Amino acid sequence: MKNAVLFVLTIVTALTITAQTTTEALQYASDGELTAPKNYRQRIYLSSGLGMTYGPAAQAGAANPKFDNVFVNPTSWRAFNVTGQWPDKTTFVLEVRSATSHGSINNGGQYQNELLGLEVEVKDEKRFPQKWAFFAFEAGDKTAPLPANSACNTCHSQNGAVDNTFVQFYPTLLEIAKKKGTLTPAYLQKSSAGGGAAK
Amino acid sequence: MKNAVLFVLTIVTALTITAQTTTEALQYASDGELTAPKNYRQRIYLSSGLGMTYGPAAQAGAANPKFDNVFVNPTSWRAFNVTGQWPDKTTFVLEVRSATSHGSINNGGQYQNELLGLEVEVKDEKRFPQKWAFFAFEAGDKTAPLPANSACNTCHSQNGAVDNTFVQFYPTLLEIAKKKGTLTPAYLQKSSAGGGAAK
Repeated sequence: MKNAVLFVLTIVTALTITAQTTTEALQYASDGELTAPKNYRQRIYLSSGLGMTYGPAAQAGAANPKFDNVFVNPTSWRAFNVTGQWPDKTTFVLEVRSATSHGSINNGGQYQNELLGLEVEVKDEKRFPQKWAFFAFEAGDKTAPLPANSACNTCHSQNGAVDNTFVQFYPTLLEIAKKKGTLTPAYLQKSSAGGGAAK
Repeated sequence: MKNAVLFVLTIVTALTITAQTTTEALQYASDGELTAPKNYRQRIYLSSGLGMTYGPAAQAGAANPKFDNVFVNPTSWRAFNVTGQWPDKTTFVLEVRSATSHGSINNGGQYQNELLGLEVEVKDEKRFPQKWAFFAFEAGDKTAPLPANSACNTCHSQNGAVDNTFVQFYPTLLEIAKKKGTLTPAYLQKSSAGGGAAK
């Protein structure tokens, strides 16, 4: 009886871990292109902005502001809650959507409409010398990483509040990072200089 | 062996269901007040708006627009994907946050900051004659339902695109409702009249 119980528990545990790994695993093709995570909207939501989008979809400028929604994989989110840091395989998805107004009963403000693009940031320490890489999905569901000297790479590495990530724009995570003491020296220095902190 | 396996599988299944029920269960006090769901940010994110907030937190008006983020419990979200309808115990949480700008590297647009309030809509068919009820959490974590003739109740019952809910503002769900044919006659009529549809 005892062996049978252990046997079944082992199988159930393995199935649970497999399901989780499969759901969050990074899928690279043989040419190194990453497949966009299909289930990103079932992951942990971090925050949204309007008119803050960056990358190719942002080039229309302030006259036509877009929403961005940011999600992270649940395993990394749980780790961040404990440590204030991002483990290997952390995957951020930034979803860009058009903004609209005056539909249905709405007569002011703005809400979200069509999907315009996805941008993904992953931490994959063995694959990328800089540890983090960026992918801008404009069309199709597979794309190569942006070059290591891309605007995304440079800006994140210089300005990320935690590691390579813009935790300064995710209010629930910023509180955790403050408590865990994991804000970067560069971010803290700019914050104390007066103009750098997320207000 | 076979009995032992069945025994363990039954326990594991029961534990899984219990965990899920506990996580999503509506918690009412003996006086009928609802406790705000603590884990709402781990639920399924639907969409965000800026300057669209309604209820008490919206009274500051357009001069000081706020973000709203909407979440729904995963069990009901999964059901909606199959049927285009909301099952009993569906729980929406609308989180209201302040909007800010020009922090860190940001020099335009707006992003989210402090939590200002929570508004909750639940479908609880046995408890409420109108099936749906609304709760506005301004301070504390427990509150009574708004009266059945509140502005929330009236506006949702007259203008919800699906049942009592504003699916017209959740782009991923609106597509599902169209496919499943579950948009309300009132919403369809206003849409075909030209001025009513979410664009």
